[in-house]
Amino acid sequence: MLRFSTAGESHGECLIALISGLPAGLDVDLEFIDRELWRRQQGFGRGGRMHIEQDRAHILSGVRHGKTIGSPVSIQIENRDWKNWTEVLPVAVGDPQKHKAVASPRPGHADLAGSLKYDFPDARYVLERASARESTARVAAGAMAKLLLKALGIEVGSHVVRVGRVELPRVASWDEIKALNQGDAILLNCVDPATEEQMKAEVDHVLRTGDSIGGVFEVVVHGAPPGIGTFANWYERLDGLLAWAVMSLQAVKAVEIGQGVTAAESFGSAVHDAIGYSPEEMARRRPGSLASTTTPAASRVASRTVKTLLCAVI
Amino acid sequence: MLRFSTAGESHGECLIALISGLPAGLDVDLEFIDRELWRRQQGFGRGGRMHIEQDRAHILSGVRHGKTIGSPVSIQIENRDWKNWTEVLPVAVGDPQKHKAVASPRPGHADLAGSLKYDFPDARYVLERASARESTARVAAGAMAKLLLKALGIEVGSHVVRVGRVELPRVASWDEIKALNQGDAILLNCVDPATEEQMKAEVDHVLRTGDSIGGVFEVVVHGAPPGIGTFANWYERLDGLLAWAVMSLQAVKAVEIGQGVTAAESFGSAVHDAIGYSPEEMARRRPGSLASTTTPAASRVASRTVKTLLCAVI
Amino acid sequence: MLRFSTAGESHGECLIALISGLPAGLDVDLEFIDRELWRRQQGFGRGGRMHIEQDRAHILSGVRHGKTIGSPVSIQIENRDWKNWTEVLPVAVGDPQKHKAVASPRPGHADLAGSLKYDFPDARYVLERASARESTARVAAGAMAKLLLKALGIEVGSHVVRVGRVELPRVASWDEIKALNQGDAILLNCVDPATEEQMKAEVDHVLRTGDSIGGVFEVVVHGAPPGIGTFANWYERLDGLLAWAVMSLQAVKAVEIGQGVTAAESFGSAVHDAIGYSPEEMARRRPGSLASTTTPAASRVASRTVKTLLCAVI
Amino acid sequence: MLRFSTAGESHGECLIALISGLPAGLDVDLEFIDRELWRRQQGFGRGGRMHIEQDRAHILSGVRHGKTIGSPVSIQIENRDWKNWTEVLPVAVGDPQKHKAVASPRPGHADLAGSLKYDFPDARYVLERASARESTARVAAGAMAKLLLKALGIEVGSHVVRVGRVELPRVASWDEIKALNQGDAILLNCVDPATEEQMKAEVDHVLRTGDSIGGVFEVVVHGAPPGIGTFANWYERLDGLLAWAVMSLQAVKAVEIGQGVTAAESFGSAVHDAIGYSPEEMARRRPGSLASTTTPAASRVASRTVKTLLCAVI
Repeated sequence: MLRFSTAGESHGECLIALISGLPAGLDVDLEFIDRELWRRQQGFGRGGRMHIEQDRAHILSGVRHGKTIGSPVSIQIENRDWKNWTEVLPVAVGDPQKHKAVASPRPGHADLAGSLKYDFPDARYVLERASARESTARVAAGAMAKLLLKALGIEVGSHVVRVGRVELPRVASWDEIKALNQGDAILLNCVDPATEEQMKAEVDHVLRTGDSIGGVFEVVVHGAPPGIGTFANWYERLDGLLAWAVMSLQAVKAVEIGQGVTAAESFGSAVHDAIGYSPEEMARRRPGSLASTTTPAASRVASRTVKTLLCAVI
Repeated sequence: MLRFSTAGESHGECLIALISGLPAGLDVDLEFIDRELWRRQQGFGRGGRMHIEQDRAHILSGVRHGKTIGSPVSIQIENRDWKNWTEVLPVAVGDPQKHKAVASPRPGHADLAGSLKYDFPDARYVLERASARESTARVAAGAMAKLLLKALGIEVGSHVVRVGRVELPRVASWDEIKALNQGDAILLNCVDPATEEQMKAEVDHVLRTGDSIGGVFEVVVHGAPPGIGTFANWYERLDGLLAWAVMSLQAVKAVEIGQGVTAAESFGSAVHDAIGYSPEEMARRRPGSLASTTTPAASRVASRTVKTLLCAVI
Repeated sequence: MLRFSTAGESHGECLIALISGLPAGLDVDLEFIDRELWRRQQGFGRGGRMHIEQDRAHILSGVRHGKTIGSPVSIQIENRDWKNWTEVLPVAVGDPQKHKAVASPRPGHADLAGSLKYDFPDARYVLERASARESTARVAAGAMAKLLLKALGIEVGSHVVRVGRVELPRVASWDEIKALNQGDAILLNCVDPATEEQMKAEVDHVLRTGDSIGGVFEVVVHGAPPGIGTFANWYERLDGLLAWAVMSLQAVKAVEIGQGVTAAESFGSAVHDAIGYSPEEMARRRPGSLASTTTPAASRVASRTVKTLLCAVI
Repeated sequence: MLRFSTAGESHGECLIALISGLPAGLDVDLEFIDRELWRRQQGFGRGGRMHIEQDRAHILSGVRHGKTIGSPVSIQIENRDWKNWTEVLPVAVGDPQKHKAVASPRPGHADLAGSLKYDFPDARYVLERASARESTARVAAGAMAKLLLKALGIEVGSHVVRVGRVELPRVASWDEIKALNQGDAILLNCVDPATEEQMKAEVDHVLRTGDSIGGVFEVVVHGAPPGIGTFANWYERLDGLLAWAVMSLQAVKAVEIGQGVTAAESFGSAVHDAIGYSPEEMARRRPGSLASTTTPAASRVASRTVKTLLCAVI
């Protein structure tokens, strides 16, 4: 079973991703992992922290001669900002004079709930872990998972479909998303340049006013075979597992699968894919479409679009 | 750790819910469990199956003298329809002449994906488990969980906020939801009678046209203390665990926490609760509201509304 | 992943075994499961309870037309003695006058520790679950697992190698163990009739004196391929998983793998199997033996003998 | 829930221990962790590797100002020998000329089974992880667990009771074991100097002859309260969990709890502790002893001695 966990705080020495269950013999493209980390750091309007860190994956275990060897893969990502915090926030007891506690919890964060939970005198103990920087380790783990999926002919892409009031007015094609993800110019990761300009204006506005703004991103899995997931146990259903993983991300407040929210307002005849048969394959028709899709029949799970809704962050 | 799993098929002998990890000594209100099963079976427009089954929880283990004894609680719910299926769908090999396979998979269901996955000659082997009836066992397990929460002063309520194009035009209060859940007249489980009439009309329409319709329900947890959940590990975050459980339900295609989808279109200043302090307690202010809430400070996790979006079912 | 859990108490309505993760399409030999339950009930010196119960596996879910269908398999085993206990130990509150508490905890049992843990006024709440009868549900789950292994060409056998001071003076062959397990006459499940007579005398002695006696049984897995298990994670190592499962059985107080305890007194040269090579296969030689074994090379894990030590029961 | 996992290979850059679920606010005694690592490296007859490595725990996360902060604790232990292996065994593809494969699998190790499992051309990919050095990371994780137990008034000690044919001829007292564990002179970790001399002679013999020798160590948990563990689920029983953890250690081939193996040869009357009562406490009497023990009654689980049997290593 593929498992991963992460460790590390925002201003600690490093972040750690520990991935177990990868098969032995998988090619590990180190540049791909670093490129995924680089992609995470792009985006218009990101905070000053992004200019300090230039993340690199340092593989500590589980890989030899460019391939996995069956043992757990552990990846270290250095926090370059750490050296500025070794006196304020040391591992050892340290000098109490140098300790500057965060006594004023921020709204929209775990600061207050975490401090009450553990009776902390310093919200920094909470915010160090309840930080968007933790997702860096998830990106490294996700990059390993993508390498495994790629070896199985499955690709994963993502793009931004909404920033505040600006929404991409059309459905993006897989080719567009793939080209966007492979490109080197990432502004707001939107497939449509005109929409992206409007999104940028939305971000410009909140930067000027000192506010923040929410948004929506879509993740598409391309090439997954039908039958992944199961109807046998609630804890093994693919929809639930995907929602678990995505909703556990900092600041994500909603997850939808396929048509998701829209389905709630719709008739079944507009939501359910018709099933067609041809001599070559069973084909699934998109509702309201005359042409059969090119995906194999029964790929409801497989070709499903995973769309996640990202709420506002400060 | 509280765990539950379910077993049983739609036209098998029974459904089983197995719950482990409940503390010993918990009062088990058998009528409450049956009432929860009864509530699941209400609702305008439900299929003919609901008239056949009148679910009763039969406790097989884990309870003595009206209290849990620390051992796993197992609950059996009989399928009354089973006696009509013992020849068509027996556990033993049976008479092949009596076997009537479902050869035509239904859209919007797991029939085709499941049959391809297991190379089944009969989609019935899939649809027997990938059935809304499985949720009966979850309701029984959930009733046990509610008894535990109640002993801790925490209540859970739910109501329907949308059916197709008809949406409840206001936020329901906890008292409204609680009264609705305790009442004996369940039409569409909407707190507002006028809206409920419109919802009923929406269902009438699909019943006449042979279509189906989606909807949205909201689950509210009342009285939870701040600090439940954790920021430590992605797999333990409360938002993710809730999304996992809810998205694993048949036909659910979207889950949002708190403002959820709306947050994606909003400025941070409108989404983040302000934190206030008074001599008695730290208070959390609803954005845009002058009065502090009555919940304890830092109850972002605790008083959060869990809203789930239910997609169309046939 | 194959998982199983059990529920049910010694004098409750029934025992439940819930097995998930079995592949769909597996032939389910109902007679085999019942035979395994019958074997569990044999043995010289067993208590009076064995004459009351004649266990039968009643499959509630997961099997149709004699094959698994991918959904969880649940098996119910009735407690025939239950009808004598419905007034003394009811699920509902019942008549307090009829409640006869066990106030005197037995040595060598969980009675006292369990009662202190939960502050129970009645040790019966503990002993109902902390009972050898729970292993009935494990035998049913184990029978399903054996059916899966059998489909993969792997067989599991067991026999008794010690009762008190009487020990089987030689290593039993796989053929002997297999024949013993397939036979219908089970006295003390020893492959050697003369030794079994001595074992019977040992049991006769404790029956006369009102005492009890310990013993040792050996489990042999035959035909397992090399490479099962892993060195990657401590929680996935096969030796550990086997020890976990076996030591969790009531009254088992020691587990050894292969030579086990004896290895601790031995030189490495006598414990480590030599590895030999031939044109057909790599062969593993038993230490001190000239002939290579017939098992494939590297089958250290696979052909390993699992020997468990059963301590005294009352 | 307390969880731990490890990563790292014998000649890789480092070992990693990742521990999650520790409560926030626990004092972390860094010297204690290093002392535990130092104790692991002592012992007469250890290989040359022990002279190269002088293990130090480097805490990467989860601790600030000398206390846990609720987030996962990750600990790095450097492999000093790594620098000698960066060309032979690099993470990246490296120079194929410098790759020296291990083509001759060693008996008594995972080399052959692992190579067959993954079809490896080089047994080094197996032996790097299936190595006693992995236990270094477990010692670091175990040290964290001991700090938690200590805060709860529970202590853990261990000593060697057998090396080959030499066995400690008496039961060691807790005070002896504790004093031994706190001392700075570790030869073979035996409480009795005369026996230890004989053990040393046994090791001297195998060193001269190029052989290896097995042994037995005992782990004692002191001060645990009764009621830890449970009879509810097989996978939660304390005996099973302990056996799982210990048997997963490299080279351990047998585990016994309490009297363990000896119980199998004994009458129940000699194995079961009598339960006595006094005005102050319920007392458990050791079989055959007149004086009651000083442990609280019902502490069968709590005061139980965990004795593990360590088989021969090369």
